[in-house]
Parts: sequence; structure tokens; C-alpha cells
Amino acid sequence: MIASEVRALFAVAARPEVVSLAGGMPNVSALPLETVSAVTADLVLREGAVALQYGSAQGVASLRESICDVMALEGIAARPDDVVVTSGSQQALDLVARIFLDPGDTVVTEAPTYVTAINTFAAYQARIAHVPMDGEGVIPEALSAVLARLRAEGRAPKLFYTVPTFQNPAGVTLSAARRPRVLDVCRRAGVLVLEDNPYGLLRYDGEPVRALRADAARGHDVVYLGSFSKTFAPGLRVGWALAPAAVRDKLVLAAESAILSQSPFTQLAVDRYLRTQPWQDQIKAFREMYRERRDAMLDALAAYMPLGVTWTAPAGGFFVWATLPEGLDAKAMLPRAVAARVAYVPGTGFFADGGGRAHMRLSFCYPPPERIREGVRRLGDVIAEETRLRDVCGAAAGAGRSAGP
Amino acid sequence: MIASEVRALFAVAARPEVVSLAGGMPNVSALPLETVSAVTADLVLREGAVALQYGSAQGVASLRESICDVMALEGIAARPDDVVVTSGSQQALDLVARIFLDPGDTVVTEAPTYVTAINTFAAYQARIAHVPMDGEGVIPEALSAVLARLRAEGRAPKLFYTVPTFQNPAGVTLSAARRPRVLDVCRRAGVLVLEDNPYGLLRYDGEPVRALRADAARGHDVVYLGSFSKTFAPGLRVGWALAPAAVRDKLVLAAESAILSQSPFTQLAVDRYLRTQPWQDQIKAFREMYRERRDAMLDALAAYMPLGVTWTAPAGGFFVWATLPEGLDAKAMLPRAVAARVAYVPGTGFFADGGGRAHMRLSFCYPPPERIREGVRRLGDVIAEETRLRDVCGAAAGAGRSAGP
Repeated sequence: MIASEVRALFAVAARPEVVSLAGGMPNVSALPLETVSAVTADLVLREGAVALQYGSAQGVASLRESICDVMALEGIAARPDDVVVTSGSQQALDLVARIFLDPGDTVVTEAPTYVTAINTFAAYQARIAHVPMDGEGVIPEALSAVLARLRAEGRAPKLFYTVPTFQNPAGVTLSAARRPRVLDVCRRAGVLVLEDNPYGLLRYDGEPVRALRADAARGHDVVYLGSFSKTFAPGLRVGWALAPAAVRDKLVLAAESAILSQSPFTQLAVDRYLRTQPWQDQIKAFREMYRERRDAMLDALAAYMPLGVTWTAPAGGFFVWATLPEGLDAKAMLPRAVAARVAYVPGTGFFADGGGRAHMRLSFCYPPPERIREGVRRLGDVIAEETRLRDVCGAAAGAGRSAGP
Repeated sequence: MIASEVRALFAVAARPEVVSLAGGMPNVSALPLETVSAVTADLVLREGAVALQYGSAQGVASLRESICDVMALEGIAARPDDVVVTSGSQQALDLVARIFLDPGDTVVTEAPTYVTAINTFAAYQARIAHVPMDGEGVIPEALSAVLARLRAEGRAPKLFYTVPTFQNPAGVTLSAARRPRVLDVCRRAGVLVLEDNPYGLLRYDGEPVRALRADAARGHDVVYLGSFSKTFAPGLRVGWALAPAAVRDKLVLAAESAILSQSPFTQLAVDRYLRTQPWQDQIKAFREMYRERRDAMLDALAAYMPLGVTWTAPAGGFFVWATLPEGLDAKAMLPRAVAARVAYVPGTGFFADGGGRAHMRLSFCYPPPERIREGVRRLGDVIAEETRLRDVCGAAAGAGRSAGP
């Protein structure tokens, strides 16, 4: 089980002596806790009768307005009426799957892709077809070919799930030039684009790109998923879907059936934070902190990785995607890495087709820079030792390489 | 659509001039808001890094301990390990349905039953078979007969969904004498009991009854659903399932797939409230407030209802179930009631088989006593007028009577 493997790994990686480059937890201790404390206290005093009561399945209206302001930063013009607030964007993903997918349906995703999305689609008994990426994100021609192949096989997919910006796990961003082509390929094939964009506002260098949803020829070509987990706090579980009216109506009914409503308390806490605090300055502070960590990781990779290891250089988000020298297996190597007090997520979890053994996801969001350097140094030693073993004993049994950036 | 009818009704009933006996909202303004404000403020200051971070899919460990203390009040001996915290007990209901039900499966429920449970089971394409109740709750012989009939039809059900204490909508409680018989009937038939108990601690008179789960011969005969929505605040969306280990494991995986985890923030807020505040005194205060409202409703019903109307006399919970004189139709009458500035929920929503036209659910939880009296007075006038019309014009087309308490 992919999910249970990840959990077991996180349990070991949580030991204090291990440098975990595994988790994708934002560094919430950078938040101004006194301010957040005052915001929630004030909320209960002034709006307690609403915040503590049942709420509507679509979500608090004033928060849906604020969410439209947030999305405007990435070029999206949206109406609060088309927003559904969910229990993190994970719930939006689950509800979209619940609405669209029948057992045996196919969902198209990038390769590699977000591990929990794989699990969610699998929970609805959907099959996954991967499309390769390169340094500019998913390859439109490859996407077109996969869609055509699936259609020819009688498996025309309903959804293309994509994390176009600072992708999890690959750390690459779909280039501005490719975005209209990806939209066009999907529109022609009648495939809905499911754009998952939790990291878009966490850019550390380069030019901002507009969300796919911002330039969709028609609003009903894209369902957009957003989240406050990386720009504010995941513990509040506030995310959202922006969807065309027909999908939105189904999402509201599905949300009601699943949880009645997302917590009015946490929704109003986020709304009050957005309306009373300098949240864009906070995001700027997050950016500076994560940029420093990203730089620490890239510098350390350059300093400590043996020849033959390659990696992506993300312009934002939380993740670097590393590729091992020929014949090494990131999953088989993990116990030795943990013994050397460093943890990562092996690439296999991010593929639905058994690929990814040559890859690993390295997170730079949570440990401070000096710990990142130390972790990468330890990892470099482990890989060097594995390479030596490979040269002496031959390639690890079962190790293979898969396509990917 | 049952859910959309209920929503439309609530929109009209929300007008200030209408006395709504429709909603099931607890009266959260009776909470000590200064205290709750201080609890949440303190939580962020002292445990912000945990409360605002991602959490585990099973839920916060200390809250699961507190939940066991709450369940002990109704005779349940449970281990925190067997508790899964959910986004309200609605999510627990949804996840149980997700785990157990395949399209075409049959779920057995009381008649009438909780409207949202009907919708949730329907969302998983399950069929519902009803079992009649009387003043002592569900009738064990009738339950046995329904299970035998379904088995003979090749439709052996997996679940018996029950709200045994202060039932929604009927307001009746399964008697202590019947409880072991209901458990026994289900155990012999291999049917899991899904015990939904949001109101158990809100008893206004009579002797407490132990939860079904408390006396299940084997722990794996019952999945128990609990909630803080009525004893603390629904806006925090904290409920739980207590389940045998095999079911618990599946619930944790399903919860992770659905929402990653329930909010650590709201979980810790509830836990801190339970550990630092006199929460049992608060429940006692709720009981006194709701008892007064229940009494106001029962007194007003006795004073204002025309001959031929009957109703249940709940010993706890939020609801009275009223039955109209022969030939009257609660659903058809509703627009006239709203015109007379009183709202209720027609009985049809609580039956999956089209029954319930002669019934209505009257809630006494939200309006203050004098409003309840005024609402019941208005309703009495409307029913008297309907009865007069019936006598002049004949019974309303399509009005029928269904079994029920």
C-alpha cells in the first residue's frame, strides 16, 4: 500500500536525529502566532454564534469573496458563486473524483504526480494513464498522443489532473508557452482539466505564470483547486474548488453528503485573517524563508552529490526531484539512508505504473537551511556508497529507470 | 430532491417573522463565548505549531482519549485506539457508507429516519428498507421480520442504521428492555449495527439508557457514531466513529483519502475545552434550556392542537413528531403554514419509500419558549383550517398515512 508505506516512512523520519527531506509540511512556526491567536479570539467574541453554528455546504459567502481576491493574483477572474469551500483542497479532489469517476474510468496525470491524487483516483477504482514531463512541464504532444491512444482503446478519459506550477513531486512548472496548448489539447478531446494549484503563490524567482484557469477559452474547461495550506495554515483545512456552475452544484450536494459543511469557524478565521492582516506580506515572508531553503538544497546538491545524480531546480514550491545514477534504486536504498539519518520519499509512490525507482523527492520546506545541507551531505554519502556497491556487485536487483524530468 | 427541498424550506423559514420549528440547529448562543474565545486564543499561543499543521488521519490522540471519557458517560468502555475523529459525525456516516456499501446494497433503518442518512446511503446507490417504531423505539420482531424477508429476497443487508436515543425525527427512545433484543437480532443475522447517537447526553427526564455499543456482546457488532455538535458546537465539525479494529483501519484510510485529516485546530480546541472547562456543567445548562423549550412545545401542543392531532413526548433531544388528522397532508400544507408564519419539516423527507405525508417534525431546540408557543399556536390554527377544508371539500388529493410512532 502506497499510503501505508509513506506513513511508515514518516514515522521513522520523525525521529529527531533524522533529517527529513520526506514530508511536505509547510513551516507554520513562521506564522505570527500572537496575531493568529488574536484573530481567532476576536472571531469567537464577535461572530461566535455564526462561527460555532452549522454552516452552508457551499461555504461562508465572505470567504468565497476573499478567495476570489486570492485567485485574482494568478490572473483568474471568478465569481464567489462559483466557489465551493472544502476541507482542504484534498476534499475538493475527492469530491471531483466522486462526481466524475465510475469504476474503470481513466484519469490522465503527469508522470510523476501527487501521491495522494493517485490514491484518491484509485479509491474510486479509476485507472491512471501517465504523460511524461520535461523541464517545461507536461509535454503537449505527448498529452495529445496519450489522449488519442486512450480514445482509440475505448478508454476516453474524463479528467486530466495536473499540478502545473511548482509540481509535486517534480518541482517543474508548465511554461507559459505550453499552457494554451495544453488547454487546447484537452478542449479538443473533451477532457476536463483539473488544475491543482497549492503552491502557485510561492515563487522564489522568475516571472509569474498565469493559472491555466485564467486563460481557459471557456470557464467550463477547467475545475481549479486552491488551498490555504501553504500560504496560511494546513491545520485549518480550508481549500476550495472553482468550478463551472453545473459542476459546482454537484460539488455542493456532494460536500453536503460528505460533511454537511466545512467548519464555519475555520472558514471565518481564514476570512478574518485575510481581511484584517497583511497576508500578502506574510506570503512574501514565506517566500523569502523557502527561497533560502531551496537555495540551501540546490547548493548542497551541487556540493555533495556524486557524479551521475541529476535534479530539478524549482522556481517555487517545496520539492526537488532527483534522479539516481543508472542501476540505483531509491526505494531499496531508503533503509540505508535512514540508517545514515536522512529520509526522502522514493519516486515509486508518485507513479501508478510501477515506475520511479530511479527517483526521489527531496523536500526543502520544513528543515532549516543548515539541516538541509547536513541531510543532503548524508544522502550524498549514501548514494556514493551505493554506487560503489553497484560497481562491485552489479546493479541492484529490480532497479529500473522510468521516464520523467 | 429531498435535500434541495429542505434547503428551499430553510431559506423561507429563515425570515425573521416566521417561527421556524424546522431546523435542528443547537442554540450555541448559550455557550460561554468569552471562555471559548480564551480557549482558542490560548491554543494558538501554546500549541499553534501543532494546531495549524497537518495532522494524522485518525485524529489527535489526546482528543481520542477525551472522547473515550465522554462515551463512558453512556456506559461505553473504549480504547482511544479504536476512535477515528471525523468532520462531524456526518463524515463518519459517509465513510462507513463508502466502506461498506456497493450499489444495490440494502441498508435497514427505522421509519422515519434521519433525512441526511437517507441521502448519504442513496449517494452510494444503496436501497433502504424501513422498520416501524412505536413509543419504545424500533420493534425487534418487526426488525427480525424485515431482515428475514430481505434475506429471502437475496437482499441480505450489511447495516442497520439506528438513532436509538431521542431519535431524529421521531423523538422516541429505544427502551432498555428492547436494546439487547435489537442487538441479538442483528448479531444473529450478521448485520452490523450503525448506532448514531448525537443526542444521548441531552436527556430532560427519566432514567438514562446505556448506548447499544455499551452492551454489545462483541465489540465488532456495532459501529458507534458520536458528535460534539449538540453538546458543544457544530461549527467546529468534530465528530467520531468508534469501530472494531478492522473497520477502524478502513475508516482511517478512507478519511485520509477524503480530507487528509480533520482539522487539528478544531480537534485541539475541543480537547482543550474538555480538559480545562466544566463541560459537564455546560451540558447540564443545555439540558435545562432545552427542557424548558421541550416543555413549552408540549404544553402548547396540548393547548392549541385540534382534535385528531397526536404527537410524541420526547425525554430528550430536539424533536417532536406530530401526526395529522386523517386526510391531511403535511407537505401540501406547508406553504399555508409558512404564509401563517410557522415552518416545520414535512414527514416525507424522513422516509425513503414515499411515506410520511401525515407527519411533521417539530424542533424545539432553537427558538426561545415564547416563540415556540406562538409557532405552535399558529400551526394549530393552520391545521384547524385544513381540517375544516377537508370536511368541506374532501381529503387532500394524494394524502395518505404511513406507519410510524
